[in-house]
Amino acid sequence: MDESTLLAHIYDRSATLAADFASRVAVGPGDDCAVLRLTSGAAPLLVTTDQLVEGRHYDPATPISSIAHKAICRSLSDIAAMGARAHSCVAAATLRAGFEHADELFDAMARTAARYDCPLVGGDIAVSDGPTVLCVTVLGEPHDRRGPALRSDAKPGDIVCVTGAVGGSFVSGKHLTFEPRLREADWLCDTLGDRLGAMIDLSDGVGRDAGRVAAASRVRIMLDEAEIPLAPSAKDARSAIADGEDYELLFTVRPGADIPSATPTGVAITAIGSVEPGAGCVFRLRDGAMIDAAKLGWDHHS
Amino acid sequence: MDESTLLAHIYDRSATLAADFASRVAVGPGDDCAVLRLTSGAAPLLVTTDQLVEGRHYDPATPISSIAHKAICRSLSDIAAMGARAHSCVAAATLRAGFEHADELFDAMARTAARYDCPLVGGDIAVSDGPTVLCVTVLGEPHDRRGPALRSDAKPGDIVCVTGAVGGSFVSGKHLTFEPRLREADWLCDTLGDRLGAMIDLSDGVGRDAGRVAAASRVRIMLDEAEIPLAPSAKDARSAIADGEDYELLFTVRPGADIPSATPTGVAITAIGSVEPGAGCVFRLRDGAMIDAAKLGWDHHS
Repeated sequence: MDESTLLAHIYDRSATLAADFASRVAVGPGDDCAVLRLTSGAAPLLVTTDQLVEGRHYDPATPISSIAHKAICRSLSDIAAMGARAHSCVAAATLRAGFEHADELFDAMARTAARYDCPLVGGDIAVSDGPTVLCVTVLGEPHDRRGPALRSDAKPGDIVCVTGAVGGSFVSGKHLTFEPRLREADWLCDTLGDRLGAMIDLSDGVGRDAGRVAAASRVRIMLDEAEIPLAPSAKDARSAIADGEDYELLFTVRPGADIPSATPTGVAITAIGSVEPGAGCVFRLRDGAMIDAAKLGWDHHS
Repeated sequence: MDESTLLAHIYDRSATLAADFASRVAVGPGDDCAVLRLTSGAAPLLVTTDQLVEGRHYDPATPISSIAHKAICRSLSDIAAMGARAHSCVAAATLRAGFEHADELFDAMARTAARYDCPLVGGDIAVSDGPTVLCVTVLGEPHDRRGPALRSDAKPGDIVCVTGAVGGSFVSGKHLTFEPRLREADWLCDTLGDRLGAMIDLSDGVGRDAGRVAAASRVRIMLDEAEIPLAPSAKDARSAIADGEDYELLFTVRPGADIPSATPTGVAITAIGSVEPGAGCVFRLRDGAMIDAAKLGWDHHS
């Protein structure tokens, strides 16, 4: 069982257990964030947790500031994927024995988090003989009118869009420097409201992540090779949709809605496909051939 | 700089940064949980994150169910220390490559969490070449009348109490099987209300943890050797207050309040000392000699 399959399996079972707590858990494991209801709260609360492992998600020679950026921003990207605003975060670090930059690392994480309006409010430190592991958990509050944007809200007839450009994130170093699309997601919620359908952030490649939206929404997603907006470091569209760690947003828009060409922050929006009845995610090549896009994607866990 | 000192240093600086977000952060880093205010929420929200590292917090041969219990219950103990109720949790695991029990481990964590009325609502899995690291973040809601019990609320004249018995947790195996004192903490808030002062859970030994209460409250705490309730596996009082991982509650009670002898769940409550003006935590031996109790304690991090 590969790690993604295992995670899906664990999510399924956890979702069953979480269903026993339906008054508290509106959306359990399996989306970018869980959606919670507090006893006293009027609006839902979002929570997401993510890890950054030395040697797997970053090279040991990476500057401390970049490690901190990636650790914080990966989780912030999950908040953006819900169309939400970050509230605060906590960070736990298991440091490689002899690591001498703990103070600098926590300082950089706190400053990065504050820059994204997400104060670091707690943490924990341990030491091990293995690689450094950073675990960041972010709390968020959904857009007040749109509410949380889920993976499960794509409908046949929707147009599939992405922000920015995709592919080549490891070559370009974007995987360390990306901007989590918080402002863009907030603006999409403001502008599109209920015409915004499903949303996800691109961590494992357009193909695999669009496949997740298709599975959660029980629809088929068709992506067009000719429409994929390529980053300068991307090799070609087929590679680009398999490359991971774009941290752009993939979202669907209801039929008939005007799709803006860019956000006010200057990030392009590109329609790359459509939603149909059915299942799976297919990639239509320029020559008309179809391939299974969900299998083109980078597995963090393999 | 040892890890506890480093953590204190990081907390201090993070607290300064978090102070810029005072409308959202009522209590920042340094207590058992952070205390947050949500935009929409009437009551505060609590959050705590903690890690469990193979080879450091548990032996690799430990049964999966015990690893899961400890991972979840360490964080639940932090919720109990605030007199709060657990709402939900997320768990991230970096697994040693080749670890074959991920499914069983997450299942056990989800079941343990559900048993303590704290659904597991999200997670993440990665793999590394190092030891397994589990990071559990728990959200909680404070007692509706008492509000969060902080470390900083001990006052001169208070009586210092502990639940249960302390010492020898590694010898007895209690560090793997302890019951987080959630019901007891809730009952203390119900029963004592505003006569409950400061509270902390005992993770690093009575001496060190009482020292944290003294430092946070800017008072001096005096503990009596003759009064320490010893677990059967504890060697003697002096050792017991240095042993870590009791996961009992240490709390202070305002002068004149009746101190119950046990909770309705059958856990003993013992007065072990008093709060005075001054600073530090001292341990009064049977022969009248005084020693610095804050230095008698187990450092998770050293």
